[in-house]
Amino acid sequence: MTGAGEDERLARAWLTRVIEPGDQTGGRWLRELGPVALTRRLGGEGDPLPGVRPARWAGLRSRATHARPEEDLATAHAAGVRFICPGDLEWPAQLDDLGDARPIGLWVRGTPSLRMWALRSVAVVGARACTEYGAHTAAVLGAELAERGWVVVSGGAYGVDGAAHRGALGARGATIAVLACGVDRPYPRGHHELINRIAEQGLVIGELPPGDHPTPSRFVLRNRLIAALTRGTVVVEAAHRSGALSTARSAQRLGRHTMGVPGPVTSALSAGVHELLRGEAVLVTDAAEIGELVGDMGELAPPRHGAFRPRDLLAPATAAVLAALPARGVTTLPDLARSAGTSPDDAVARLYELRSLGFVERHGDGWQLTRQKDHSSKSSHDDP
Amino acid sequence: MTGAGEDERLARAWLTRVIEPGDQTGGRWLRELGPVALTRRLGGEGDPLPGVRPARWAGLRSRATHARPEEDLATAHAAGVRFICPGDLEWPAQLDDLGDARPIGLWVRGTPSLRMWALRSVAVVGARACTEYGAHTAAVLGAELAERGWVVVSGGAYGVDGAAHRGALGARGATIAVLACGVDRPYPRGHHELINRIAEQGLVIGELPPGDHPTPSRFVLRNRLIAALTRGTVVVEAAHRSGALSTARSAQRLGRHTMGVPGPVTSALSAGVHELLRGEAVLVTDAAEIGELVGDMGELAPPRHGAFRPRDLLAPATAAVLAALPARGVTTLPDLARSAGTSPDDAVARLYELRSLGFVERHGDGWQLTRQKDHSSKSSHDDP
Repeated sequence: MTGAGEDERLARAWLTRVIEPGDQTGGRWLRELGPVALTRRLGGEGDPLPGVRPARWAGLRSRATHARPEEDLATAHAAGVRFICPGDLEWPAQLDDLGDARPIGLWVRGTPSLRMWALRSVAVVGARACTEYGAHTAAVLGAELAERGWVVVSGGAYGVDGAAHRGALGARGATIAVLACGVDRPYPRGHHELINRIAEQGLVIGELPPGDHPTPSRFVLRNRLIAALTRGTVVVEAAHRSGALSTARSAQRLGRHTMGVPGPVTSALSAGVHELLRGEAVLVTDAAEIGELVGDMGELAPPRHGAFRPRDLLAPATAAVLAALPARGVTTLPDLARSAGTSPDDAVARLYELRSLGFVERHGDGWQLTRQKDHSSKSSHDDP
Repeated sequence: MTGAGEDERLARAWLTRVIEPGDQTGGRWLRELGPVALTRRLGGEGDPLPGVRPARWAGLRSRATHARPEEDLATAHAAGVRFICPGDLEWPAQLDDLGDARPIGLWVRGTPSLRMWALRSVAVVGARACTEYGAHTAAVLGAELAERGWVVVSGGAYGVDGAAHRGALGARGATIAVLACGVDRPYPRGHHELINRIAEQGLVIGELPPGDHPTPSRFVLRNRLIAALTRGTVVVEAAHRSGALSTARSAQRLGRHTMGVPGPVTSALSAGVHELLRGEAVLVTDAAEIGELVGDMGELAPPRHGAFRPRDLLAPATAAVLAALPARGVTTLPDLARSAGTSPDDAVARLYELRSLGFVERHGDGWQLTRQKDHSSKSSHDDP
């Protein structure tokens, strides 16, 4: 396996405890010094880093004295959480678009490959205090996007986020929750069950180390990660100055597609979306229109880091599910799980990963290998 | 008074009985032969017009034998309806944009100058079978546009049209109903009272001569007139393939602003509007946004037919209302009507005409002469 060496991984884990997500000065230090040298400087070796106010330097130094990266990695491991770094096979290359605000590393719960899933992902975000209309629309979009093979990314919050995740889960589809806290301590507490279920069927990720708390600025900076990870962001309901609009603005800055679902002009919770739609965002009313905009797998920009051979990147257990599919015809999920020697829940997660790569197709409740001849035209329209 | 001569006026009245609204072949004949020569040819003198199928020619000839323009003009006069022609002072110059589909003439009920009002008009159209949301939104837009000095143009139909007219009337504002039948026989029958009230406080206009009936194609062709007359068209609710969309498409073809009011994606009656908004149309949520788009009086294209001196174009009774306003300060409607020697209803119609020309401003229930110094910045934002 290529990727970050153990020293660098430990240093980056240390840095997620010390530097706030999205801190561009920290990102610049990291780029200029590298993670290991940066931990030494922040740990007190040599001079303070140039251009830092004394109070800020004291804050960083204080955090540094409390950082215990070996413990964090052990806690994470015990909770089924892995730590991935730039350069790792699983690292989503599109996060480079964030420049110096790129995450130092990502803490990840769940089986599928984040890199694979993110390639075919769309963000569905919106107000926490949404209306019934917003919740209904987010749930339908989540389900329909998942049925079409898209991975639904959201923030795990109450309201629109939760409805979008639940819609995807209900369709036995793929979903990723991006948290503004440690992925081992789901926030909000009322979504404990939901986030655990996302971790079982999909992925729960974040920049903060185990046990860390969300803060208002962390919520906002988390939004840039949702925007950067996905091909486009759909805002379902958002009042003026809603946090969901910051995700949309990040998506715009990053050159991702920005979309909005309209609502009644009499609803304050649609006012922020309408504001977006009067600007650059595209009005969408269903999953087909979203898929039309963000495009097919085949339209992806070529990866920047060397040749991209999807089959080589498959985890062994995913490759086992692929190998268990018959050469011709459709098979059912229970049969496939048995052949692959895994649970149906695990198999379905791997099937969606394989589908996102164009290896398999879903037909009603069955799955089959993609017919190569007409793969490009079928990949997003193969639902009954 | 300049404008069409009596021969030409009589010929055009005759032609509105014989040629269907929007008939481009008829429009070409009219352009090539002029109205008087065209009536002679259609009346049977000389050869049939070239390139007309015999059945069509027979239809035109049959209508021609029944045309009684003197009677139509007399009936119209008795019903308080005037007939205006291209070249008349009251003729709206922007109708030239329709080319050979320009109306032959217009039958007009109501006191204000159609030309003056059309200069500052916006169309608000939509579904007949609208939802409560659509009716509410149309009524609010009608009222708010009227309060800002805009003339609200619509088709007098049930649903969105009626709500927009009522909203404008309720704000004692200016509104124009464009009918697909004779303006002396309002259609639909259930809007008899409403259309009479529009004729008292505003204008009721159409291309069809007295007593003529609406037909499906006349409704569609009426829509081009609404689009051409106004600076922009706002669609409030419209299902896929709704007639209101034809108004919007005409507006687009004519280079007018096309706007749509969004609604829930779960509502079939917003689906047509959303379709528009995914194309060229601009999403609007209130009258301020509409006014921002269609612009101030000052931004009007220069008139094409000679110098445009608004004060010279005022009807004597309108000039009397203008003269009755005090040089400084605000006056109330009853006082002003008394000074001008007219009824409050008549005075208010003339005040909106004056306002559309930038002569007067409304302040709550009062009116005053526009302060010249800051006229351009105040003209569309002077409501309390």
